Amino acid sequence: MQENDRRSPGFTDLGELKIDVDRPRRTGAAEAVFAAGKTPDQVVRALTELRNAHPELPALATRCEPACLEAVKAAFDGVTVAETLAVVGDFPEPSLGTVGVVCAGTSDLPVAHEALYTSRALAMETHLIADVGVAGIHRLLAQEERLRSFSVLVVVAGMEGALPSVVAGLTDRPLIAVPTSVGYGASFGGLSALLTMLNSCAPGITTVNIDNGFGAAQAALRMLRLTDQTKD
Amino acid sequence: MQENDRRSPGFTDLGELKIDVDRPRRTGAAEAVFAAGKTPDQVVRALTELRNAHPELPALATRCEPACLEAVKAAFDGVTVAETLAVVGDFPEPSLGTVGVVCAGTSDLPVAHEALYTSRALAMETHLIADVGVAGIHRLLAQEERLRSFSVLVVVAGMEGALPSVVAGLTDRPLIAVPTSVGYGASFGGLSALLTMLNSCAPGITTVNIDNGFGAAQAALRMLRLTDQTKD
Amino acid sequence: MQENDRRSPGFTDLGELKIDVDRPRRTGAAEAVFAAGKTPDQVVRALTELRNAHPELPALATRCEPACLEAVKAAFDGVTVAETLAVVGDFPEPSLGTVGVVCAGTSDLPVAHEALYTSRALAMETHLIADVGVAGIHRLLAQEERLRSFSVLVVVAGMEGALPSVVAGLTDRPLIAVPTSVGYGASFGGLSALLTMLNSCAPGITTVNIDNGFGAAQAALRMLRLTDQTKD
Amino acid sequence: MQENDRRSPGFTDLGELKIDVDRPRRTGAAEAVFAAGKTPDQVVRALTELRNAHPELPALATRCEPACLEAVKAAFDGVTVAETLAVVGDFPEPSLGTVGVVCAGTSDLPVAHEALYTSRALAMETHLIADVGVAGIHRLLAQEERLRSFSVLVVVAGMEGALPSVVAGLTDRPLIAVPTSVGYGASFGGLSALLTMLNSCAPGITTVNIDNGFGAAQAALRMLRLTDQTKD
Amino acid sequence: MQENDRRSPGFTDLGELKIDVDRPRRTGAAEAVFAAGKTPDQVVRALTELRNAHPELPALATRCEPACLEAVKAAFDGVTVAETLAVVGDFPEPSLGTVGVVCAGTSDLPVAHEALYTSRALAMETHLIADVGVAGIHRLLAQEERLRSFSVLVVVAGMEGALPSVVAGLTDRPLIAVPTSVGYGASFGGLSALLTMLNSCAPGITTVNIDNGFGAAQAALRMLRLTDQTKD
Amino acid sequence: MQENDRRSPGFTDLGELKIDVDRPRRTGAAEAVFAAGKTPDQVVRALTELRNAHPELPALATRCEPACLEAVKAAFDGVTVAETLAVVGDFPEPSLGTVGVVCAGTSDLPVAHEALYTSRALAMETHLIADVGVAGIHRLLAQEERLRSFSVLVVVAGMEGALPSVVAGLTDRPLIAVPTSVGYGASFGGLSALLTMLNSCAPGITTVNIDNGFGAAQAALRMLRLTDQTKD
Amino acid sequence: MQENDRRSPGFTDLGELKIDVDRPRRTGAAEAVFAAGKTPDQVVRALTELRNAHPELPALATRCEPACLEAVKAAFDGVTVAETLAVVGDFPEPSLGTVGVVCAGTSDLPVAHEALYTSRALAMETHLIADVGVAGIHRLLAQEERLRSFSVLVVVAGMEGALPSVVAGLTDRPLIAVPTSVGYGASFGGLSALLTMLNSCAPGITTVNIDNGFGAAQAALRMLRLTDQTKD
Amino acid sequence: MQENDRRSPGFTDLGELKIDVDRPRRTGAAEAVFAAGKTPDQVVRALTELRNAHPELPALATRCEPACLEAVKAAFDGVTVAETLAVVGDFPEPSLGTVGVVCAGTSDLPVAHEALYTSRALAMETHLIADVGVAGIHRLLAQEERLRSFSVLVVVAGMEGALPSVVAGLTDRPLIAVPTSVGYGASFGGLSALLTMLNSCAPGITTVNIDNGFGAAQAALRMLRLTDQTKD
Repeated sequence: MQENDRRSPGFTDLGELKIDVDRPRRTGAAEAVFAAGKTPDQVVRALTELRNAHPELPALATRCEPACLEAVKAAFDGVTVAETLAVVGDFPEPSLGTVGVVCAGTSDLPVAHEALYTSRALAMETHLIADVGVAGIHRLLAQEERLRSFSVLVVVAGMEGALPSVVAGLTDRPLIAVPTSVGYGASFGGLSALLTMLNSCAPGITTVNIDNGFGAAQAALRMLRLTDQTKD
Repeated sequence: MQENDRRSPGFTDLGELKIDVDRPRRTGAAEAVFAAGKTPDQVVRALTELRNAHPELPALATRCEPACLEAVKAAFDGVTVAETLAVVGDFPEPSLGTVGVVCAGTSDLPVAHEALYTSRALAMETHLIADVGVAGIHRLLAQEERLRSFSVLVVVAGMEGALPSVVAGLTDRPLIAVPTSVGYGASFGGLSALLTMLNSCAPGITTVNIDNGFGAAQAALRMLRLTDQTKD
Repeated sequence: MQENDRRSPGFTDLGELKIDVDRPRRTGAAEAVFAAGKTPDQVVRALTELRNAHPELPALATRCEPACLEAVKAAFDGVTVAETLAVVGDFPEPSLGTVGVVCAGTSDLPVAHEALYTSRALAMETHLIADVGVAGIHRLLAQEERLRSFSVLVVVAGMEGALPSVVAGLTDRPLIAVPTSVGYGASFGGLSALLTMLNSCAPGITTVNIDNGFGAAQAALRMLRLTDQTKD
Repeated sequence: MQENDRRSPGFTDLGELKIDVDRPRRTGAAEAVFAAGKTPDQVVRALTELRNAHPELPALATRCEPACLEAVKAAFDGVTVAETLAVVGDFPEPSLGTVGVVCAGTSDLPVAHEALYTSRALAMETHLIADVGVAGIHRLLAQEERLRSFSVLVVVAGMEGALPSVVAGLTDRPLIAVPTSVGYGASFGGLSALLTMLNSCAPGITTVNIDNGFGAAQAALRMLRLTDQTKD
Repeated sequence: MQENDRRSPGFTDLGELKIDVDRPRRTGAAEAVFAAGKTPDQVVRALTELRNAHPELPALATRCEPACLEAVKAAFDGVTVAETLAVVGDFPEPSLGTVGVVCAGTSDLPVAHEALYTSRALAMETHLIADVGVAGIHRLLAQEERLRSFSVLVVVAGMEGALPSVVAGLTDRPLIAVPTSVGYGASFGGLSALLTMLNSCAPGITTVNIDNGFGAAQAALRMLRLTDQTKD
Repeated sequence: MQENDRRSPGFTDLGELKIDVDRPRRTGAAEAVFAAGKTPDQVVRALTELRNAHPELPALATRCEPACLEAVKAAFDGVTVAETLAVVGDFPEPSLGTVGVVCAGTSDLPVAHEALYTSRALAMETHLIADVGVAGIHRLLAQEERLRSFSVLVVVAGMEGALPSVVAGLTDRPLIAVPTSVGYGASFGGLSALLTMLNSCAPGITTVNIDNGFGAAQAALRMLRLTDQTKD
Repeated sequence: MQENDRRSPGFTDLGELKIDVDRPRRTGAAEAVFAAGKTPDQVVRALTELRNAHPELPALATRCEPACLEAVKAAFDGVTVAETLAVVGDFPEPSLGTVGVVCAGTSDLPVAHEALYTSRALAMETHLIADVGVAGIHRLLAQEERLRSFSVLVVVAGMEGALPSVVAGLTDRPLIAVPTSVGYGASFGGLSALLTMLNSCAPGITTVNIDNGFGAAQAALRMLRLTDQTKD
Repeated sequence: MQENDRRSPGFTDLGELKIDVDRPRRTGAAEAVFAAGKTPDQVVRALTELRNAHPELPALATRCEPACLEAVKAAFDGVTVAETLAVVGDFPEPSLGTVGVVCAGTSDLPVAHEALYTSRALAMETHLIADVGVAGIHRLLAQEERLRSFSVLVVVAGMEGALPSVVAGLTDRPLIAVPTSVGYGASFGGLSALLTMLNSCAPGITTVNIDNGFGAAQAALRMLRLTDQTKD
């Protein structure tokens, strides 16, 4: 079973891992490690390569099991953990716009935190508005002005996932909806919230995968780079 | 192929139709004719029997195709048609409480009308608040006081179906949520709105089948009869 | 990551928790804590705030894991536990009408108990009729008179979930159907019972989420408040 | 594009059609023509071969479109049509036991008729009990004795499909449940009734495909042949 | 929370358990205990009542967890366990016809055993033909004659579930198809095999729930009682 | 059936239609008319109100049936039609950034056109790159530089919907993925493409509903307003 | 709305159509036109370009509506139509191995024909074995030797789709399974047959999309080119 | 419960196991043991029989649990384990063509390894190209020449599963797509990747079950045997 170990332009080829070191230039963010299904050793190895390739950027691993998080904390200094996300290296100074992460219930906080910490690792300024679900709409309306003060909104909700529709009607900001798997019975692991967000009657909402706070932050980055005067 | 044609206590046995003439006594409302899959002739025959059994009550047929509606209008005087619903006979004076039918978008009106006309046929007083979807939440909040003035609320919404969650947080009234098949793509014929309503974070919402305005009115009747002093 | 800690009219803002203390006035019942996805500490903190805000009402937490139940029992006196439901504080005297909880099989009892204890916490008088599934219809018919004696019916069933259709044909009472996840194979975690209840040929049934005994009790409360002379 | 046209033991090979003329010996019933997706000409050709192979048996075609039914009626004498079923040839004298076809609503009659006419074509004596849905359970209980008088029961129901569970608790007869596509919204084309029947709490129910009255009759035949003294 | 403890004709009312002691007379078999979701204590209590009501019949509990099986074995003498099925009491002498249980793969044996032991407990003579999946069709054809020697066939298969279609083409016996959850990936917990069996092109197959060997045996009993001369 | 016709701050209340005339101020775009389920008359009436409220903005109606399009063209001058989209009024001068609409196959063009014309109506400059599906990846790579020249990308694809993943790896621009219902069989009306986009391994993709070119343009608007110096 | 019209190496860029003229060199077969969702004019234009680019190869369009087929027949000489497939140009002499197309029922013939004509257009020799469904297994076994005489097998089946499993157990040839949408009820448009084929217990089966006879032929081509001595 | 223990031509009948010893002659590969649902003892017994029947071939067991793998390693010498696959006996010299296994991400390696080891056990030469997902398309394009050097390609991908579409556009080799269950949320256990592969716009892709690396290798074997000059 021969394997490839050539070094090619644009990526570092370690055989079973090929680090896409050219990605920051192309897409504005370094590759992150999707840890699910990888051994702790593979995750550490990939993070090491990312740190070597981009020492100025924190390296991220998502969907880490506890054993994986332990291995990462043992292997590196300066690891920040938020649920299943590991951030290796210092958070940069915020240099892009502001991301407001809004979440419907306290149970949605783990996903909101994934969005918040990823955003910070990508040099965005972050704010959290928590527990403003639509069953007590006045809690949300009390934040209306503040909602309009952020550049981009990430709205996180499980169960029926109605929050993004209401928020989108209150502001003109880009709104990234994140369905969560919070719920039971006919929530079908987040399917209910996902369908709600895809079918929103409020135009201009976009959606990411269930529980994908990481992806929402990445999308926010793409949007905020539009306003980045220092970029080119 | 022998068939049954005996006359039994509590129902009129016409072979392929068995009219449950005892139902008003047991459940508070006469049987209605579910017209889908029946021939126009079968529908007319069933309505005739219902009129004979309960001359004081209007007779209803739901899910009527156009040919069926034509046959009903030809067979009876005094037919009111609302979309696929036919009401044969005069509407009674309202003698029970008030039903407020709230609908998210103008496209949901056919289902709202089914709920309204069925409610009227069952002697309830009805009101309609239309086009108050959550993307323009101020339209709904302008109705907050009025919402609290009805005895029972029927809230009709398609697409993401978020309206009942918000309304339930504003009032203490029984709230019957009706998902509609309005939408496209990932609304999957009303599934999206249905799941939203079943997973609502606002406690105390109950749900009926997709597009089932008729059933919502029947449920409202059961609730309003709780307050009916004239009943027994 | 700045967070909000302002105190706003109508709710207590603790940052990640915003207690909707105005909810009893608006909807007739205090907020309950949805414990799934929350840490035991968050649940205890929320219950404490609810107890402070409404000392006269018991505080409820639903979907508690065992560790969460332990934390709640350690933090408060007078905790009643029914499966995953925790009730903190004394049950009030029943002052509203009667709720009859009917369940199809003994395996459905945990969900039935959630409905019963929530109903009691909300000041309703409760009764249980258990193990009257439709495969032995005479067991149910023997209860016909008793079924008609309750103000509101909560009918709990897993597997094929046929019980509400039969009960609804026997009485004129509001009927809240609760599908359970009892079953295996093609029950698909309660989907079979849920679809049955949504498609019932007996008009006037309304349905809540799978295993949602809590929500059924909340819906019953909204109905029984219609008859509450002491309310306004 | 060469094709096979050899004549093989046990079947007649017409290239694109291979008539399984040995099937009555092996399985107790002649092959039937599944007309969906076939041209009228192919259906007529297949029926002709079946008539030639088994002149003593009526030949059946299921799922016929109107154009196909016209072609069959033009091609043969003595065609009986029941919805999409065509029976070519005389019905035999009933020589096996009795089949009781029970159906929940008048809208389910087309499927019930498919079961009835197929049963008659297979030499079974047939009876119909129609419109005994569970929302008016007394209509069904009035038939309890009669239900127990048949050898085999075919129970046909759409919407929530609860009828077989109740019937199975009243008799010891083999019970073949036939879900129908009657319904709307969350009936999902008969899925609701199908899941109900598969999950029945009444033991001993077996189920066939949605709208498959033909298959139910074929299953009944296999059961009644167990009691056929004249068979071997 | 008052509960019912009246003793009614036809069943023994223990409050949360109502033993349908009249069921053998009505349906030909005693009630069995569905153990899933019940406490071991509830299961033992129900089995005790069944033994008291019908001392001449073995009492069955299905879907028992290991702790439940332990409790049953501790509480009674003469317990036979087959996977999750517990049989309390002696197996009767076979007095009805023969049931041939055919299974596609060795992995399907647990479900096949549930069918076999239930059949024996219901006084049927049982035979097993194992590991005759359709990928090696000659293994099945070698059993053709033997297949035709049984009164009723129970055909058990997971994965693609094709075995019943082939067997039904080889015999005229009633054939009860049992899909199993054996498989992975797109078998979706037995859905693949279930759909295969419902859509079989071989007429006369009936199907039960996924992994429901118990139900298949109960259905076989209903069929074999047709031939029971001693019954009435 | 009384109806509301009060005039409230922020919206024009026409009873069954409530025009949210305040929406441009809040969200940056005027309300559009969702025509599905509305009568042509209702659509024309709503467009008239929108034209009156915002004479400087074109008014849009989506999901128009042919009869509806005819009515709109008869009622107004200057109607542009793109598939089911009607634009009433002149397109404004582009004053915001550029939107590149990329589509996988020629069959996806109708959805791409909906995105293009909506974008133009919202004052964005638009470009189309068509027929660059991933099966001929060199067609796409030949556009790599051009892809990077747009401010925002809308990527439209049916069937397997893989195009957004590849495009997102080539640029740092915000990327809105639009699944289409183009396909057959296991595409399940666009579900396949939708799931692909939600599960993309390329971080930063966001997704809208199936066939929702309109929503993608609305989302692009929210993003481009971030860079609009003239806004406040 | 500017569009691209540059001419790039490897493909012909016509703006909304980009003909991948390099594809035969890369993948062994010319691009085909997927006609669904295209106008007849677009289809004719694409076929014209393909004929110009590769005059020696027939040009194919799949999923053509009747109007599209008419346009194609009007635009070209020498058009062969098989259901929704149009072949423009002469079929080449067979120069690769043999493809045996086996189909379960006569209703599956349209899909089988799509596979046959595509195979012939791609220079393969084709044979058809029709109507050998598993319910009459002897019809199939009579073909066992012949099945083993082909290089590649394409096995087409709807309903339960069991045929590929049996055929794969009889031969060592590559076997491409094609599920069809033939069926009703719980066949769910071919899903049942698709799942069957994916879950086959016979190792070595591969599957294509529902009704995708075209894709099966393309896959066969890739396999037979392995044996093509003239290729390089 | 009598069981069969006859010895029949073509297979070894051990009652609950029937070893299809004739399978290599018919299909080109020995039977493998599907270990899921079997006891370790049953797996060892079956492997023993396979080793006895075909001493020259390694015997394979798939889907082994850890306890099963331990039992196999204890029972035999020379066991190779790759995830849940056990290979008993020496790998043969490669005598057929080359299989290139391409996988999208490092997390897909377990499934890729199952394909690789099975291929080696079946005498094919194997190569691995790992971590070439489409989000960094240049990593894949750097392998374009190498991809074209293999006889058959097995392409393994989870999440959105887009890799096979791109690879198929770059080569003319048979391509077997293997979806994996890698992913979360709306990947639904591999369904997303599976649908992507079935709907690929790149013609000639065939697909196997989710995570079925074993089946892909078996399919590759059938293809490579086409080129095997030593076969007959």
